[in-house]
Amino acid sequence: MPVKTGSISLNTHGNTDISDITKELRRLVAESGLTSGTLTVFCASSTSGLTTVEFEPGAVADLKRMFEELVSSKKDYAHNATWDDGNGHSHMRASLLGPSLTIPFVEKSLTLGTWQQVVYVDFDIRPRRRELVVQMVGE
Amino acid sequence: MPVKTGSISLNTHGNTDISDITKELRRLVAESGLTSGTLTVFCASSTSGLTTVEFEPGAVADLKRMFEELVSSKKDYAHNATWDDGNGHSHMRASLLGPSLTIPFVEKSLTLGTWQQVVYVDFDIRPRRRELVVQMVGE
Amino acid sequence: MPVKTGSISLNTHGNTDISDITKELRRLVAESGLTSGTLTVFCASSTSGLTTVEFEPGAVADLKRMFEELVSSKKDYAHNATWDDGNGHSHMRASLLGPSLTIPFVEKSLTLGTWQQVVYVDFDIRPRRRELVVQMVGE
Repeated sequence: MPVKTGSISLNTHGNTDISDITKELRRLVAESGLTSGTLTVFCASSTSGLTTVEFEPGAVADLKRMFEELVSSKKDYAHNATWDDGNGHSHMRASLLGPSLTIPFVEKSLTLGTWQQVVYVDFDIRPRRRELVVQMVGE
Repeated sequence: MPVKTGSISLNTHGNTDISDITKELRRLVAESGLTSGTLTVFCASSTSGLTTVEFEPGAVADLKRMFEELVSSKKDYAHNATWDDGNGHSHMRASLLGPSLTIPFVEKSLTLGTWQQVVYVDFDIRPRRRELVVQMVGE
Repeated sequence: MPVKTGSISLNTHGNTDISDITKELRRLVAESGLTSGTLTVFCASSTSGLTTVEFEPGAVADLKRMFEELVSSKKDYAHNATWDDGNGHSHMRASLLGPSLTIPFVEKSLTLGTWQQVVYVDFDIRPRRRELVVQMVGE
């Protein structure tokens, strides 16, 4: 059973910047030549994470606010004393959300809901160039 | 290496309704014909999620309370203004918990702990008919 | 396509004890004989979880504090009335964080970032002997 590995490159703005990567994932599934299996998206970063959400401006704004309320950017973090880079809250939000997401695909199509988009959330505090690993295992 | 895809249908009551789906998952593994591999459960929904918990009434009640405390149903959400459907908090809780869970199976058996059940958590605010995708990749 | 299953044994101290298991995971990938695929780490426990973090003392301390702030050990939990074991908050933190983590590997190497370590977080309130399941599916 083959393994196919691709990637997604994107420029992010930081501060809980939320990017819809659903279209790129669908393209990678279509190009893989596989019919069914699981797709894993992974961010090789400790200041960002992945989840799904209905990607509309209201829910996107709510998501940003939720992370500020759960893990405040205004508090002190011991991590900041280590590197003096001021993104301690970014690290905590990333650990809470998690760096990977696994989604089944069937008949060459991701099994996402109609109102469900895959989003990459960059919690870092400055613009970044990011590369996500996308791996499909199937047949 | 084969891929086997099944599903679980269930009726949920909404408002952080927590359903134990462990027995159905064990049945799907047994019926798959596979000996070892990974099972992925995925909900094609942006208002529900998956995790594990010791499924006893106390922990189930605690889980409902935890989500209410982390992401209050009493606050205003920008998502509600978009659709006027009042489930903005459901979307946020679902994004926080995540829509998928991956569990290894070995010798035709899920590697769950004795006091660990797989639960589907429906955060939406009304009863729903739900279908979960269950996919096994292995040998 | 082969499936390879290994394990990691570790002694934990409890109370959100955070262990870096990256080296053991890299060793299991190297020993698997597989070139590329996905690795899943799973804890067969309802009082512990897995994520990634930059494993340095500051971020580790921040992570412990974050979980105490999100899910307080000082509150009452209905689970405690069931077993009288005082670890209701441990169960809730575990359900929130999640019991599994999936990471792609390519050219016999996990696709982790330089400052990103895989950590096992034991939320239970006493020292435990733990065994994690590590499964690789690939080619």
